[in-house]
Amino acid sequence: MIDLLIRQVNALQLRDESAEIRLGCDIAVSGNRIKSISPSGAIDVSQARTVIEAGGQLAMPGFINTHAHVPMVLWRGLGEDVNVESWFNDYIWKLEANLTPEDVYWGMQLGMLEMIEAGVTAVADHYWHMEYAARAVEKAGMRALLGQAMFSANGMGQIDETAAFVKRWHGAANGRIRAIMAPHAPYTCDDEFLRASARMAEQIGSGIHIHVAETRAQTQASLRQRGQTPIEVLEECGIFQVPTVLAHAVGATAGDLEILADLRLPLGIAHCPKTYAKLAMGYNNLVDLRALGISVGLGSDGAVSNNTLDLWEAMRLTALGQKQLTGDAEKLTIPQALTIATSESARVYGQPDELGDLAPGKLADIILVDLSGAHHYPLNSVTASLVYNARASDVRTVICDGQVIMREREHLTLDRAEIIAHIEPRLQRLRRREGADGIQTYNP
Amino acid sequence: MIDLLIRQVNALQLRDESAEIRLGCDIAVSGNRIKSISPSGAIDVSQARTVIEAGGQLAMPGFINTHAHVPMVLWRGLGEDVNVESWFNDYIWKLEANLTPEDVYWGMQLGMLEMIEAGVTAVADHYWHMEYAARAVEKAGMRALLGQAMFSANGMGQIDETAAFVKRWHGAANGRIRAIMAPHAPYTCDDEFLRASARMAEQIGSGIHIHVAETRAQTQASLRQRGQTPIEVLEECGIFQVPTVLAHAVGATAGDLEILADLRLPLGIAHCPKTYAKLAMGYNNLVDLRALGISVGLGSDGAVSNNTLDLWEAMRLTALGQKQLTGDAEKLTIPQALTIATSESARVYGQPDELGDLAPGKLADIILVDLSGAHHYPLNSVTASLVYNARASDVRTVICDGQVIMREREHLTLDRAEIIAHIEPRLQRLRRREGADGIQTYNP
Repeated sequence: MIDLLIRQVNALQLRDESAEIRLGCDIAVSGNRIKSISPSGAIDVSQARTVIEAGGQLAMPGFINTHAHVPMVLWRGLGEDVNVESWFNDYIWKLEANLTPEDVYWGMQLGMLEMIEAGVTAVADHYWHMEYAARAVEKAGMRALLGQAMFSANGMGQIDETAAFVKRWHGAANGRIRAIMAPHAPYTCDDEFLRASARMAEQIGSGIHIHVAETRAQTQASLRQRGQTPIEVLEECGIFQVPTVLAHAVGATAGDLEILADLRLPLGIAHCPKTYAKLAMGYNNLVDLRALGISVGLGSDGAVSNNTLDLWEAMRLTALGQKQLTGDAEKLTIPQALTIATSESARVYGQPDELGDLAPGKLADIILVDLSGAHHYPLNSVTASLVYNARASDVRTVICDGQVIMREREHLTLDRAEIIAHIEPRLQRLRRREGADGIQTYNP
Repeated sequence: MIDLLIRQVNALQLRDESAEIRLGCDIAVSGNRIKSISPSGAIDVSQARTVIEAGGQLAMPGFINTHAHVPMVLWRGLGEDVNVESWFNDYIWKLEANLTPEDVYWGMQLGMLEMIEAGVTAVADHYWHMEYAARAVEKAGMRALLGQAMFSANGMGQIDETAAFVKRWHGAANGRIRAIMAPHAPYTCDDEFLRASARMAEQIGSGIHIHVAETRAQTQASLRQRGQTPIEVLEECGIFQVPTVLAHAVGATAGDLEILADLRLPLGIAHCPKTYAKLAMGYNNLVDLRALGISVGLGSDGAVSNNTLDLWEAMRLTALGQKQLTGDAEKLTIPQALTIATSESARVYGQPDELGDLAPGKLADIILVDLSGAHHYPLNSVTASLVYNARASDVRTVICDGQVIMREREHLTLDRAEIIAHIEPRLQRLRRREGADGIQTYNP
């Protein structure tokens, strides 16, 4: 039996950094996995429980957001046109002093509402009150890798607590939810804390999601204070003994990249170009990173820096930014941008064999994109249109883990009116900065 | 009598680089001009011929595209991941050998379809067969400043021909159409040709729209070959004796900027950041330019480099790009980005007193934008949302010269099906590159 049959799609297929469009296919889904991709018409419609007539829409893997702080959507538009120091100390860490668990529950839903509309089916989220985030993910039908943020200033007790969170939620919701240890960063977690986090991750078979070397200034400060780069600190503390998601690493040195390239364990860098440009952090040279075999995934970071959680933007800014950075228009090609957005993001997210590819046996996280708009016509190159023309509003239907969660832009899991009704009364309190003590001070 | 009354808008108002949102207004339009902006409800609805109930949408001036080659949308997606030399010699100038006047008529309509959907109400277009472009603009109801491109290799006769075009079309369609002399660039027009163009522009009371110093390599080549920068060449040839739209000027030297700053006549630079990133051309430092009093407008350039004609993208990339370039997140603020997109683009376009501002007496080029989407919520900052969150698909209604040309995303002037029906049979011929001699060779 086929649970879901998606008829008449053109399917994006990426292999070894070449991109092809397979025209006129039907995708059959059984349970939560892709069963087959075959020429349209080959499968009897009466065999399928649910049929979607896609009418020539483009099918591609759902986007995977490899680094986010989803509930920060609650504060989007606050903290504009400021430098990194002010952004942390005058805005974020004061605003976050207001945060309640219920804010996370509703803010997570709001951010997922936006992500689902943009075709994002999975998110590696690094934030607070993640028990509440997990419940929201359960409801939304998205896939998530959840990490409860930790500062060493809040005590060693967090390590047991977040390990308990990992054990409770890892594998929940039919495997849609995975969990990970999430010490915040080497500048907010001391060595002892990092070591204990790594040991615990190893002990419970988990990994680490951590910010590192967000800017070159952080690397310089670390060298001054500790004689080591932030990435050397992580290495020495044993973080790289477990699978690791590194957020940013913009300030990685050539030596740091050698350390990362030599590692045997799964590790990847989440690349969040809109945030990097907006906060003037500089860009990683992804051409170099990838030549070293270091995986790169797309991330949105939080919406106070990134303003949206839109990975079409992240993919486009990745391609444009690398051409600009290298001064070479032939660099970071369209197939490479699409590879980063799909299979390579799946690798950073920790499910390289299950996500980021439309193929039999893979998990059925599929989005259907309408490329018939005036901004795509004539469709001389489907792959160019995906990287340089497509907008979140072109996404029509979103399938995650075999379930349709948005159909022709209608949400089937989340209730927009309910979410707004719960957030609206919170906003005045959430926006308060006056008199608040920040939850931390940024002084790396 | 009021011809058009737009009720219940929040109106974007920019003054001296500060941005305010005037809540709950009604905008009254008489003929092609804004008559009043008043608190909602103050005007009797029965006084108005047409009423739009905007229900809290955001009203702002239509975007002004200060540099484009609109009919190139026909080739979008061809010419990807190549450097500037290959882009010209292997793609554009071979493809353009296929171009017919009717291609321009339909390609222009296609590009305007896209621009209207994105809230662009005016375009400075620099292209071929502009008689046909003008007829398309007449039909679309958009505003355009049209220049017939000239290479000196095609002979001095073009100067009289394009002057005749200017005289025939300048002021047509109730003033929506203006025309300008358009020598291509100093590397495709010799000094004699440039001088004759400038003299003719002066004689007929017109201006010049020209590409200059597109890359730093062009400036270096010009210095090697002629001992002058491209901008010095234009100055010496008298171009700056008339109002001038300079496309790009990315390769302008510090000395060039002094020349431009010292000029008394209207002059502005069209800034096309998506194209610059895509072709690895580098960015202008707009902070420096603007400090010198040089006006900067947004441009899309052609869709073979820019892929879309979307100025939301151009505005966003302008802000992000300048923060990245200067390494200072406080630079190119939200109000500055909005000023560049509105009144400053109007200045570059040559109608600073009539466009780019919602105020009584100005021409009624107004767009209504829906900011209720999940990607804007909560709307903590309307102006931040315009620069960093809004998408072309958020534009609901477009008014140009007092006429509604798109209402709730329904086109009222252009016929999408008709346009596609006319373009589809042309595509195979248009895409041909094999065996074609290019219309020029790029070798600056």
